[in-house]
Amino acid sequence: MSSQPTLHIAVDSDIQLRLLELHHAQVYNDLTNRNREALAVWMPWAAYENSLEQTQSFLQYKLRQFADGKGAQFGLWYQDQLVGALGLNDLDREDSKVEIGYWVDTSMQGKGLVTRASRALIAYAFHEYALNKVEIHCATANKRSRAVAERLGFLHEGTIRQAQRLGDHFVDMAIYGMLASDWREER
Amino acid sequence: MSSQPTLHIAVDSDIQLRLLELHHAQVYNDLTNRNREALAVWMPWAAYENSLEQTQSFLQYKLRQFADGKGAQFGLWYQDQLVGALGLNDLDREDSKVEIGYWVDTSMQGKGLVTRASRALIAYAFHEYALNKVEIHCATANKRSRAVAERLGFLHEGTIRQAQRLGDHFVDMAIYGMLASDWREER
Amino acid sequence: MSSQPTLHIAVDSDIQLRLLELHHAQVYNDLTNRNREALAVWMPWAAYENSLEQTQSFLQYKLRQFADGKGAQFGLWYQDQLVGALGLNDLDREDSKVEIGYWVDTSMQGKGLVTRASRALIAYAFHEYALNKVEIHCATANKRSRAVAERLGFLHEGTIRQAQRLGDHFVDMAIYGMLASDWREER
Amino acid sequence: MSSQPTLHIAVDSDIQLRLLELHHAQVYNDLTNRNREALAVWMPWAAYENSLEQTQSFLQYKLRQFADGKGAQFGLWYQDQLVGALGLNDLDREDSKVEIGYWVDTSMQGKGLVTRASRALIAYAFHEYALNKVEIHCATANKRSRAVAERLGFLHEGTIRQAQRLGDHFVDMAIYGMLASDWREER
Amino acid sequence: MSSQPTLHIAVDSDIQLRLLELHHAQVYNDLTNRNREALAVWMPWAAYENSLEQTQSFLQYKLRQFADGKGAQFGLWYQDQLVGALGLNDLDREDSKVEIGYWVDTSMQGKGLVTRASRALIAYAFHEYALNKVEIHCATANKRSRAVAERLGFLHEGTIRQAQRLGDHFVDMAIYGMLASDWREER
Amino acid sequence: MSSQPTLHIAVDSDIQLRLLELHHAQVYNDLTNRNREALAVWMPWAAYENSLEQTQSFLQYKLRQFADGKGAQFGLWYQDQLVGALGLNDLDREDSKVEIGYWVDTSMQGKGLVTRASRALIAYAFHEYALNKVEIHCATANKRSRAVAERLGFLHEGTIRQAQRLGDHFVDMAIYGMLASDWREER
Repeated sequence: MSSQPTLHIAVDSDIQLRLLELHHAQVYNDLTNRNREALAVWMPWAAYENSLEQTQSFLQYKLRQFADGKGAQFGLWYQDQLVGALGLNDLDREDSKVEIGYWVDTSMQGKGLVTRASRALIAYAFHEYALNKVEIHCATANKRSRAVAERLGFLHEGTIRQAQRLGDHFVDMAIYGMLASDWREER
Repeated sequence: MSSQPTLHIAVDSDIQLRLLELHHAQVYNDLTNRNREALAVWMPWAAYENSLEQTQSFLQYKLRQFADGKGAQFGLWYQDQLVGALGLNDLDREDSKVEIGYWVDTSMQGKGLVTRASRALIAYAFHEYALNKVEIHCATANKRSRAVAERLGFLHEGTIRQAQRLGDHFVDMAIYGMLASDWREER
Repeated sequence: MSSQPTLHIAVDSDIQLRLLELHHAQVYNDLTNRNREALAVWMPWAAYENSLEQTQSFLQYKLRQFADGKGAQFGLWYQDQLVGALGLNDLDREDSKVEIGYWVDTSMQGKGLVTRASRALIAYAFHEYALNKVEIHCATANKRSRAVAERLGFLHEGTIRQAQRLGDHFVDMAIYGMLASDWREER
Repeated sequence: MSSQPTLHIAVDSDIQLRLLELHHAQVYNDLTNRNREALAVWMPWAAYENSLEQTQSFLQYKLRQFADGKGAQFGLWYQDQLVGALGLNDLDREDSKVEIGYWVDTSMQGKGLVTRASRALIAYAFHEYALNKVEIHCATANKRSRAVAERLGFLHEGTIRQAQRLGDHFVDMAIYGMLASDWREER
Repeated sequence: MSSQPTLHIAVDSDIQLRLLELHHAQVYNDLTNRNREALAVWMPWAAYENSLEQTQSFLQYKLRQFADGKGAQFGLWYQDQLVGALGLNDLDREDSKVEIGYWVDTSMQGKGLVTRASRALIAYAFHEYALNKVEIHCATANKRSRAVAERLGFLHEGTIRQAQRLGDHFVDMAIYGMLASDWREER
Repeated sequence: MSSQPTLHIAVDSDIQLRLLELHHAQVYNDLTNRNREALAVWMPWAAYENSLEQTQSFLQYKLRQFADGKGAQFGLWYQDQLVGALGLNDLDREDSKVEIGYWVDTSMQGKGLVTRASRALIAYAFHEYALNKVEIHCATANKRSRAVAERLGFLHEGTIRQAQRLGDHFVDMAIYGMLASDWREER
């Protein structure tokens, strides 16, 4: 990894989760542009045009959420290159839970990067934020995403019909959950 | 019903759903005070002290949500008396769905008021807002609430573990859903 | 009238005043476009270009006013068609008064729709909001508008010189008023 | 007058209208406290308790109005002492008009201070802001205020019934107006 | 000077500092356009395009600062013509200090206008705002500006390296200061 | 160090700079309370009462600054204990500079913690934010703070008289600076 200091959650000797700040807009925009086609299959936002200005607004929005304790967006850096993103979404202190999301550059799939990084992010959520539950929501037909949730030991709690609009149709969403008690036990 | 004009959704000759405005704060506060004990069994907010000022803030908050097209809070008026509340919560235009919530004065339970009023509110959501889905979320152990969802023809889509904090513990939530296509068919 | 539930103030078997919401923008924009020429004779706002985006902003603005208890904008629905608009403007709780405004599609003039709908809106203001006074302000030369105020039994209280800019000149405004005590007596 | 520089509109060798800023809160609060009883006869706001904090909030509010081009609040300094206040209220660029208000320490009444200061403020409104009309609104029974309006050459344009709440009752308001054309002629 | 009332700080029989308001946008924009080339040598903002809309935004921004007690922007009127600008920047009540800035039309340089006007503004800052210190920050190579600071009796307190970006390079800034105690002594 | 993931800038095997979030309010409040007396000698804010609510507001404020790219507040964790704080203050992208501040628990002084942590923070500012300059401002009489600046290789650029209010008097501030070019050279 880089010998330069960064603001990050350490995953292992190859991977850092760095909090995405405004000065990352260009490199993050480049990454999403390289992956737009693959992203648009499952992510509603990826179908919109995605200028640098929109990426800046998105990062600003997520940083304000972070400032208010309602979420966070991290970049996945692998060997000092930005290759993916993981988010803490809808962080809800009242009900003590959060939903995590993730995606990785298509050329980096198959190395287990998302699974390793998610494990660190889940530990961060349970340990640092002392949350009671972490959820993963993914389209039922998104096998790669569901495989991550299952590999991480999450329980499939329900399939919510037509829960998300994706272009001109609606997709069913699988809800996976891990309780703090599950997590502590497993370790 | 009153011969005076009100801003409402008509349910039947006995029942009106009136949009709750700031001038209803006193009567709504009285109603919640009379039902606090029963409400607190299932509704996290009911355990907090609930002054007139808090009720005013709550109504102001829901009116701003209404102004932004993100929800609405209605009072259930039965024979010109406020006896309950129904809400359109988390109205989500992007994914074209909404969650409805409801409660009624304990002394008015058993008359089917909530079921009748919910039917009108569901028709309003599907017809006037052209939504694709209506959901009902209720604690799995809240039998009365689940019975309403089932009587209305909603499908049980999942049971989300420890999804809501209720005082010192967490409760599992049943998610029920009705699609616009279900609703049109049934009529 | 429609058998579908709407959020409205009932006027009579033909007329409903529905609170204008964001999803009404298209139909409201169409109505103003059909009447632009006639509206521009007396209404300063009608002279501006009036895109769908501007109508959405206007409705959003009026809904925020409604949320803050400072006004409301209603559509006049006649036999389930939007044919005009009535507003509660400058609703002032401190001095317990409001000004009402109104206009109707030129093809619908002469049926007394505005007078009937105004009566309901005035009753709503006095009964539901418990106001002390309703005013109507109209250009002195706007005979049709003045006739409505007089037919409704309002008193002409003054003529304010050059009170409103209309394009390149200023027009005098007649101020009409009805006190809550007048209204109760008359009924 | 003081040899120290101030931000003001010059009236004559004895009188300055200084824009009220946050650092004037203490001296302005003292002045209103000395005159509370007299002010409360005609000014609704004077009946409320009037702490230094409330005066600071009021001045902050008027300064924000000034920043937005919607009004201004001036102190009347006579021989370097704050003895009254004059305001530009509801400054309306769209209709090119403003309402002025005024009051003076009871011990300073009878010297024509308000009339002299109002003349300068009216000239400021017509010349600097290029407005088309200045109005004065005062309770019909407030003889002293009406005398100022008449002495300044304003025309009585109407008497609006129960236009202002004053404690437990409503008072009629006389509306006086001066057009830019009247003003230019008179000079 | 004009016989019309203006809101100003009097400097002498030829010069007024008028608080810049929104209606001055056109004349202020004209002045900056005439001086753009000269201004851009030392003022970073002058290099940007400078439409009327940008000038309006700038004045609005400075008026909001003024409303919050954090600064003020004045126009320098010489014989009733706008010929320059002086600002109270970063007004800091907590540390009781302010920085002043100034510039004048190139055709008006050499008459001592800035020095005379600055003296009045400094007196205003010390007397009316009761500040403890006034500073002047200027690029070390800006001889004209430094000469003003020195003529006014300010002390050179430091030279901060590369403190301001000017186009594609950074310039060193000289910091000059005058304490309230210096000012009182000198008079 | 803790085996649990944290969001941090790594300094060395003993020290982490963790971005201070809302959930750190209690531990940060405890630390400032233990050091209040020593802090109040040089830090104006330390003299105010410092409840948990105030600490929460302070952290919220710094997180909003961070979200807007205008600063950041870090806790200094030594062997997994919070023992001090370092800040990026007045981060100014336009002029490409930032000021850093620091303090450490009195019981931890003398171990060089602040110097080591500052080196990492300075590297972060120059490398990650690509700034052109880092400054340190400290009271001239604060020898410990000045020694850190000098040990880090900063240049003393000026002494600004009475630049900061500290209780009932003003203190002179020494300004130290390091340019990006100095920093690169030194490494």
